[in-house]
Amino acid sequence: MNSLDVVGVGNAIVDVLAQADDAFLASHSIPKGGMILIDEDQAKTIYGGMAPGVEVSGGSAANSIACIASLGGRAGFVGKVAKDNLGDIFRHDLRSMGVQFDTAPLEKGPGTARCLVNVTPDAQRSMTTYLGAAGFVSEYDIEKPLISSSAITFFEGYLFDQPVARNAFVKACDFAKAAGKRAALTLSDAGLVDRQHDALVSFIGEHVDILLANEHEAQTLFETDDLEIMAERARALCPLTAVTMSERGSLLVPRGGAPVRVAAKKPEKLVDTTGAGDAYAAGLLFGLARDLSLETSGALGALAAAEVISHFGARPQADLRSLAEKAGLL
Amino acid sequence: MNSLDVVGVGNAIVDVLAQADDAFLASHSIPKGGMILIDEDQAKTIYGGMAPGVEVSGGSAANSIACIASLGGRAGFVGKVAKDNLGDIFRHDLRSMGVQFDTAPLEKGPGTARCLVNVTPDAQRSMTTYLGAAGFVSEYDIEKPLISSSAITFFEGYLFDQPVARNAFVKACDFAKAAGKRAALTLSDAGLVDRQHDALVSFIGEHVDILLANEHEAQTLFETDDLEIMAERARALCPLTAVTMSERGSLLVPRGGAPVRVAAKKPEKLVDTTGAGDAYAAGLLFGLARDLSLETSGALGALAAAEVISHFGARPQADLRSLAEKAGLL
Repeated sequence: MNSLDVVGVGNAIVDVLAQADDAFLASHSIPKGGMILIDEDQAKTIYGGMAPGVEVSGGSAANSIACIASLGGRAGFVGKVAKDNLGDIFRHDLRSMGVQFDTAPLEKGPGTARCLVNVTPDAQRSMTTYLGAAGFVSEYDIEKPLISSSAITFFEGYLFDQPVARNAFVKACDFAKAAGKRAALTLSDAGLVDRQHDALVSFIGEHVDILLANEHEAQTLFETDDLEIMAERARALCPLTAVTMSERGSLLVPRGGAPVRVAAKKPEKLVDTTGAGDAYAAGLLFGLARDLSLETSGALGALAAAEVISHFGARPQADLRSLAEKAGLL
Repeated sequence: MNSLDVVGVGNAIVDVLAQADDAFLASHSIPKGGMILIDEDQAKTIYGGMAPGVEVSGGSAANSIACIASLGGRAGFVGKVAKDNLGDIFRHDLRSMGVQFDTAPLEKGPGTARCLVNVTPDAQRSMTTYLGAAGFVSEYDIEKPLISSSAITFFEGYLFDQPVARNAFVKACDFAKAAGKRAALTLSDAGLVDRQHDALVSFIGEHVDILLANEHEAQTLFETDDLEIMAERARALCPLTAVTMSERGSLLVPRGGAPVRVAAKKPEKLVDTTGAGDAYAAGLLFGLARDLSLETSGALGALAAAEVISHFGARPQADLRSLAEKAGLL
């Protein structure tokens, strides 16, 4: 019996959403539809030029953890906030869903991370992230009892760029393995996969039991766009690989068996695709933590993703548990 | 020539919106559909029990000022934030609309005000406000050049409960009068009118040129629910009184002329009535500041209110200037 289903280790970020036009993106060299890291001065400049905004808790792994809580899972989170209002907001929004989140806030240093999300009239979201305190999550924040008691520990690829955070990943993987539990990683960003290719391959081969990637990230990691070659290379690298392909569903590749195709679930209305991958990861990992089949786990991922893309914002607004029960998945 | 149309003096507040059920309201003694002030400990307790939230700048007069900026007006704001993230957010959201907002933040003391808004499934909003730094706005924040250069200075009734803020109102009224400019007051809350009845009557009689109230506040102030008697008493007290009556429109009562009935504008879709009064005040005051007729000024108020109630949130999402031009009002 695991006392937790999934613990996420990721960026503790509050999103700031505002409307913008293409000229604004161009004037600040913001790549449309992408995510880039910025420093504090850049964050001040970009925020200073942005329209009035709305603030809401975000972060990729944290979004997944919120979905797992909504599915009725027992979830925990490890991530670094500062001692400020945004840190309080981030902590509240996870804890109020029943998520165990006890990482000590950063005592001295930069403020809580924020992701400035500029939404253009074509509904594309262009993200600039000031990592602030979030990048300071370290091996000292990894508590053995928490990791050992969780069926799966789940890492956000975005943090792989930060050497201090990468050490935290390794420490957590060691605790998980020693307790007979699994480690999962989402690749987060094709640019990151390209930058960190060899280090990622080596980390995954040594530590990761469940790998999540979208098609573009998987193509960059496995250096092929042929799905069969990709599946072969995935089997060689990792016990289970999940590749998401937007409306074409996802492909689960277990080392010891045949690939499983999972259909995407059509949302009632497609409003905003932000958080689709985070939600899919949540459903899949929750299912695997509960020892459900690959088919059911993948279908839970598709169900969670369909809910999240049916409204603005990356965290679930409906009770995912009820939706999954109605769909006969739980 | 006035360099500004309207300066607002009000609560600098960030709203925290979350879903709740009636049992939650009852367990924290929150009056449904109302607004009560709470202290820091109560705010911690209530927030601790609330669901994940969304943060957005609010405050009654500040919402009006945002609407005036959206109408193309030149607007300013006086209100107190603390030196914290929420204060930065509040300041940014006004300045990014072109609003002049230079009140020095509170150096030492409580944090930036927040209004915890619990939204029940019946779409009612129950507000608990922790005033924090906002209640510290004082006469020392009233700058003569700002008030003297604005056609209208507009006060938020909610602050009338705070003696220090009330002194700020009086000082600003004196500056406005000396410069030949007008003072406007919105009554904000029937409970406040009841509590402060005699002090309000005396303040309005001495200082206020334009009084705004909803029907219930006006009934409490004028101690009658007969509209004709109310109009008579309004004329005796104040040069111009505007009474809003939701979907029944509004009544403008000038001291020296016949009352003017203004029809409400039907929103495309009624989503959330929060901020309707703030938006109406914005349209009316902008029209009066530009010396438009009572009919046109009232219609601008109705137009702004219709936009704000057609979506969640109390600040405008469409460009009110374009809407007013399309409607032939500007």
